[in-house]
Amino acid sequence: MAGLSVIAFDADDTLWHNERFFRLSQQRFQELLAAHAEPDQLAARLLAAETRNLALYGFGIKGFTLSMIETALEITDRRIGADVIGEILDMGREMLRHPIEVFDGVGETLATLAARYPLVLITKGDLFDQERKLAQSGLGELFTAVEIVSDKTAATYGRIFGRFGGASGALMAGNSLRSDILPALAAGAHAVHIPHDLTWDYERVEDVPPSPRLHLTDDIRKIIDIIDKI
Amino acid sequence: MAGLSVIAFDADDTLWHNERFFRLSQQRFQELLAAHAEPDQLAARLLAAETRNLALYGFGIKGFTLSMIETALEITDRRIGADVIGEILDMGREMLRHPIEVFDGVGETLATLAARYPLVLITKGDLFDQERKLAQSGLGELFTAVEIVSDKTAATYGRIFGRFGGASGALMAGNSLRSDILPALAAGAHAVHIPHDLTWDYERVEDVPPSPRLHLTDDIRKIIDIIDKI
Repeated sequence: MAGLSVIAFDADDTLWHNERFFRLSQQRFQELLAAHAEPDQLAARLLAAETRNLALYGFGIKGFTLSMIETALEITDRRIGADVIGEILDMGREMLRHPIEVFDGVGETLATLAARYPLVLITKGDLFDQERKLAQSGLGELFTAVEIVSDKTAATYGRIFGRFGGASGALMAGNSLRSDILPALAAGAHAVHIPHDLTWDYERVEDVPPSPRLHLTDDIRKIIDIIDKI
Repeated sequence: MAGLSVIAFDADDTLWHNERFFRLSQQRFQELLAAHAEPDQLAARLLAAETRNLALYGFGIKGFTLSMIETALEITDRRIGADVIGEILDMGREMLRHPIEVFDGVGETLATLAARYPLVLITKGDLFDQERKLAQSGLGELFTAVEIVSDKTAATYGRIFGRFGGASGALMAGNSLRSDILPALAAGAHAVHIPHDLTWDYERVEDVPPSPRLHLTDDIRKIIDIIDKI
């Protein structure tokens, strides 16, 4: 086998908790607006606002906060009190301050792999926030390159992997089929899907075509065995 | 002379208009809150909020929008109407959609330089928004590398110029003494200051130590002559 020349990882919900902070904020958002909307209706309106705003805001907590404020105005026909808006701003700031909790096994697995391959972190979201999280995770030194990108398409992966000998010798590991797995496969790379029990609705996909380059595991430690067999 | 091995440019207010859109939004913000605060007082509170929030939000329009909302709540003791909050959200979205107006002489100057040197764009702000502006400017193809960074420090410039043979052979051109000129000089690079008549208060500096590596011009076209003499 030709082996691999670069291993790439997603960050949020692959290396550390992220979606849980969004869920907690959504729950508080639903409580704040309980007098105005049913939780399910509110969640649907928020997802609609987030999706509509993606083309302007991109991914990340600042855009999420702005979409929560917009949804609060929309669902109350602009009759919401300024105190609730203040609470939403506070929630956004708290999310931006939340401590990073790295998943079990991540540090040792990355250290083992970093001794053998260049590692690349590929993540989307707010540049500033993602840099903060990486710094706080203590994992920064293990990566040869950190790519904070506005979206993860096959072209994104092709461009990044091109700097490391091409996609056919690359492997992308992540929790999101939509952002990490499908576009990496489409670019010609190997992919390891490590599902996370919380996945943002936007990232869900129905259909994954089978591929000999697609691998699945529930434990990031097992990626070493998977790589040994490629 | 050893000559140069890489030329770098700031984007906002160096290659295209930016600050004017922030000023227009601030003016509308002052009109919206005219019943609650004097323009000067409001501007001071907004700058204080922006500066306080930089460590969480970083630079860019989304953070600016969140800081406007925060200031509106603060200055009215959370008694502002939701309709005003809605107007601020609209203003933020309009800023994110504003068309790019490239300054006169930029296209031809970059094209001339790109034939001789690798060009690097170094800009801070929202990743997503800066990518949009670059795409819309039509200048993207002229740059060998585009670096959208969370802050511009001497270390930032040292890291980027290191990939092109080191800071001593690099030149950084931009409108901001604080972000473009002083840290690039500190990293050991040459710098061309191209002042813009509108500069965000945050970017102002009092004191620029003299340096043989610092050049000044009011016209980006003249950078070619400056470079020829280095």
